[in-house]
Amino acid sequence: MSTGPTKLGELGLENFVPYLMNRIMGRYNAALQDEMAALGLTTPQMRSLAVLSVIDGILIRELAVYAVVQQSTLSRALEALHKDGLIRRETDAADSRAIRVFLTNPGRDVYERLWPHMADAYEAMFKGVDDAAQKAFVATLKTMLGNIRKHDF
Amino acid sequence: MSTGPTKLGELGLENFVPYLMNRIMGRYNAALQDEMAALGLTTPQMRSLAVLSVIDGILIRELAVYAVVQQSTLSRALEALHKDGLIRRETDAADSRAIRVFLTNPGRDVYERLWPHMADAYEAMFKGVDDAAQKAFVATLKTMLGNIRKHDF
Repeated sequence: MSTGPTKLGELGLENFVPYLMNRIMGRYNAALQDEMAALGLTTPQMRSLAVLSVIDGILIRELAVYAVVQQSTLSRALEALHKDGLIRRETDAADSRAIRVFLTNPGRDVYERLWPHMADAYEAMFKGVDDAAQKAFVATLKTMLGNIRKHDF
Repeated sequence: MSTGPTKLGELGLENFVPYLMNRIMGRYNAALQDEMAALGLTTPQMRSLAVLSVIDGILIRELAVYAVVQQSTLSRALEALHKDGLIRRETDAADSRAIRVFLTNPGRDVYERLWPHMADAYEAMFKGVDDAAQKAFVATLKTMLGNIRKHDF
């Protein structure tokens, strides 16, 4: 398939990677919907907390890329997280127009309650996929992201 | 990793599959944005045409699953496609409450103009991934979808 599929009908929907990835991510998000709702979080808010749990103090424009959320949507999500005391914002020391975002302790607590459900959904996805296949899968995803990303991270 | 990652920080965001898949799908959709806009299509409309190109005459409730679009969003998308003469709708012969959707010839033409761009975006994603790795990747995606899907298809 290195020359690309010629027709979707020939390839089959069930072999078309964007279709498969959409279906899987749709189910992954749906699986977390109840837990997010119980914590009063939307998907952009959950993703922001997850990214901040790994890269705290990130610039808002970087967070938008990592969380795959448009700036306007992210602004609303951060406003809500700030109002609930889950994040704090600081002007960047070097650039007064850039804002950095940090998890507060309550924000980290909320994320810690969410994570086991994210881990469960993750594990459910990979049932019957052995470690070697999973490693190869992640390696291919990394190559793919490297191929098409616009940012250096 | 068969027991699941214990912490996102330990695993690293760059190894977390839902993150990688979100980033990749975000770029794939962005790559098609200009072509969709030129054809006057939204993402749900594009996905509907793509699914119909493979499974014409599908029930609306099945189309919602295949296109990974909520029923209300899909209804609006189908309304717009119908208004533009790209699809036609028919009551199912066996169930008068169920509606089947078909591509019209103009609908197929629009899809045929879109597909080369979808194929290009697809090919760009898999640059440097050899056929064996790509086959293994698709096989893992199928296992994952089988693990978490709610529908039989």
